[in-house]
Amino acid sequence: MSKATEPIRIGLLGCGTVGGGVLRLLAEHADTFRSRVGAPLSVERVLVRDTGKPRVEACDSAWVTTDPSTILEDPSIDIVVELMGGEEPAHGYLRRAIEGRKSVVTANKLLLARHGPKIIDLASATGVDLAFEASVGGGIPIIRTLREALAGDSIESIYGIVNGTCNYVLSRMHEEGLPFAEALREAQREGYAEADPSLDIDGLDAAHKIAVLAMLAFGTHIDLERIPTEGIRPIEAIDHLFAERFGFVIKHLAIGLDREGSVELRVHPALVPQESLLAHVGSAKNAIFLEGRALGPSLLSGQGAGAMPTAVSVVADIVDLAQRRRTGSNGLSMRSLRLGEKPLLPLGEIRSRYYLRFTVHDRPGVLAQIAGQLGEEGISIEQMIQDGQASASSGPVSIVLITHEAREESMSRALENLASSESIAAPTRLLRIEEP
Amino acid sequence: MSKATEPIRIGLLGCGTVGGGVLRLLAEHADTFRSRVGAPLSVERVLVRDTGKPRVEACDSAWVTTDPSTILEDPSIDIVVELMGGEEPAHGYLRRAIEGRKSVVTANKLLLARHGPKIIDLASATGVDLAFEASVGGGIPIIRTLREALAGDSIESIYGIVNGTCNYVLSRMHEEGLPFAEALREAQREGYAEADPSLDIDGLDAAHKIAVLAMLAFGTHIDLERIPTEGIRPIEAIDHLFAERFGFVIKHLAIGLDREGSVELRVHPALVPQESLLAHVGSAKNAIFLEGRALGPSLLSGQGAGAMPTAVSVVADIVDLAQRRRTGSNGLSMRSLRLGEKPLLPLGEIRSRYYLRFTVHDRPGVLAQIAGQLGEEGISIEQMIQDGQASASSGPVSIVLITHEAREESMSRALENLASSESIAAPTRLLRIEEP
Repeated sequence: MSKATEPIRIGLLGCGTVGGGVLRLLAEHADTFRSRVGAPLSVERVLVRDTGKPRVEACDSAWVTTDPSTILEDPSIDIVVELMGGEEPAHGYLRRAIEGRKSVVTANKLLLARHGPKIIDLASATGVDLAFEASVGGGIPIIRTLREALAGDSIESIYGIVNGTCNYVLSRMHEEGLPFAEALREAQREGYAEADPSLDIDGLDAAHKIAVLAMLAFGTHIDLERIPTEGIRPIEAIDHLFAERFGFVIKHLAIGLDREGSVELRVHPALVPQESLLAHVGSAKNAIFLEGRALGPSLLSGQGAGAMPTAVSVVADIVDLAQRRRTGSNGLSMRSLRLGEKPLLPLGEIRSRYYLRFTVHDRPGVLAQIAGQLGEEGISIEQMIQDGQASASSGPVSIVLITHEAREESMSRALENLASSESIAAPTRLLRIEEP
Repeated sequence: MSKATEPIRIGLLGCGTVGGGVLRLLAEHADTFRSRVGAPLSVERVLVRDTGKPRVEACDSAWVTTDPSTILEDPSIDIVVELMGGEEPAHGYLRRAIEGRKSVVTANKLLLARHGPKIIDLASATGVDLAFEASVGGGIPIIRTLREALAGDSIESIYGIVNGTCNYVLSRMHEEGLPFAEALREAQREGYAEADPSLDIDGLDAAHKIAVLAMLAFGTHIDLERIPTEGIRPIEAIDHLFAERFGFVIKHLAIGLDREGSVELRVHPALVPQESLLAHVGSAKNAIFLEGRALGPSLLSGQGAGAMPTAVSVVADIVDLAQRRRTGSNGLSMRSLRLGEKPLLPLGEIRSRYYLRFTVHDRPGVLAQIAGQLGEEGISIEQMIQDGQASASSGPVSIVLITHEAREESMSRALENLASSESIAAPTRLLRIEEP
């Protein structure tokens, strides 16, 4: 009976907006958690940088500390919740926590993308649980779904809208015809983009997330540097218009595909069919489409970021790990997270349909030249729109194509050969077409 | 060490297509499950009605039995998986299994909708786990999401497309303009509807499912008989056309709303905005939209039925309960499933916008009469389409309205008063407008 009332002790590393949300939810639902875990959850300490900063009401000032060792070295702390973000000192703290046999909850996708295998190995060797639902997709329970709900299935494909900033910017360009720069400024005004938005709009954040998802879905870790990653800066308002005329919407996707023995991971903007669910995931929302061999197609969508949705995921992890600690089943969950080695399919070897927007000088024979170069590489054209000829000006015009499926390598070669042509007035825009 | 290799023993009640899928997945992923559970999963017995019937390859003929007591009374069986469906004998078997301290997995929504509280009480009192992911939404992990991922949140609303047959029929009517009877025949041909489809298309199946979801989301059980339930038989092709002109799509919804102290549960076709994700859930797919106080809006979509998707959910439950048995943490999960009493908000008291299609004799003053009756009940009209006047025939014409929000009671009264009017040529079609 005394064991039943011994609380599970929690230390928080970092107390920004998500941390504040976690403390609020832990306080609000304390009774539910106590009955679920069989013991109360007790926050003991909260590591902050600046003790003078005002905190949320749920944060007891007695908990606040600037000394990490009061959490990491205190043997009475059961669960460490890392919400600092960034690589260091978070990485070092996490390792110390695991070495100290504490269960660990983290929302740090960068850390997992860079050091996932080593952290998982350490946790597994130490017999410690590690949970990271909030690292991908904010409040969307994608990690839980991959690890638990689909334990009896094999994942064939993942197509994720995992960066809210990109989705917001692209959605506004699509809906309002805004130029990229203006849509981005609006995103910054609305709090959907950072002052320095490059981590988001250049695709790195999405690359971190697909690296984490690939560990769970395909049991393999691919170095971040090797994941082909493109952002959304080159997309122009006119691309949205052409995409729409062909029946597509432009979305920024993180893609993972099981290619029997190898995996295909890539991050880039793509055209998705207007009638697909992904096309209708608007604003800063996230969505993850996945297909399991037995499950078939499935979609999870929701708030990809934001303090409270993310806090819901962190708290679900805390309750889970608390339950495992309470019953002595901690460490078990790491058994099934053994990572193997699967080669990454080189980008040149992928196959896709393509959207190509050529900006050309309007002179006879230019279409024949484009078609000829594509034809030489075995790429055939499915649809074509040639615009701007009726215009009085003699400036460059657009030729926009949808191709049948082709190999990326052949496509790159064809575009390279065309690039030097005098008919081509500006770099050609290439977008892949994805049909999840 | 010897404890680690002691298998977790499983008995299946029923071995139709889902059961066959479960056996296949258990065989295919045996190694994954062994490392995850820390013990092998061993199927010991499979209860069938007819031993002569051919079984899937994964079903060892030595397992097959027609005697339920070889599973229910065998103390070595750890987990009973009920896939028989129907009320009896499934209910009796389930209780015997729980009384015999076996963990229980069931996909039986009817059983849970009718006897959920008693079964949960029994499991709780006996310290036995009960899992039922496959009872709602086939392969969609909605139960897990409500119980675990959202443990730290409060659910405000659920809008579910939970019946694949209804969604298939409505989708085909919408896409192809088919009449109801023809869309239903097509669904039957394609295997999306039973020979006797009434359980699905009259809304009962969806009512079972919302009753189960309400237990988890709102902690209350509402008798099936009390859940206002309407099916899709009265919907005509012309309703889809009018809905589209107003910017909506007709979907069959199971709705659950937290009304501070009471709950609103109902099952009926409804107009949802074309731009909502739910509007784009086509074919026989299912989707559950939910809104949590902290989480915000979220959608889970996928195959709502089918042998393999459902089997994935059943197997996830088996692995879960096996892990809990192995670590001695079984029983714990039932602690948080305490059901309270929350009154059901009477249908008359709900508020909604409405779609009304009147079939009237085309004579002067008829619109004034309709508007007058609605006005008397304080219901104001937002949009109106009057069709068919240009037609040469003097047959009845349609007047279709979208109203502002009104109380259902007032609406019923207005329609009742109008029903006796000589201008009204056929019963008026009422559909609620839902904007999740």
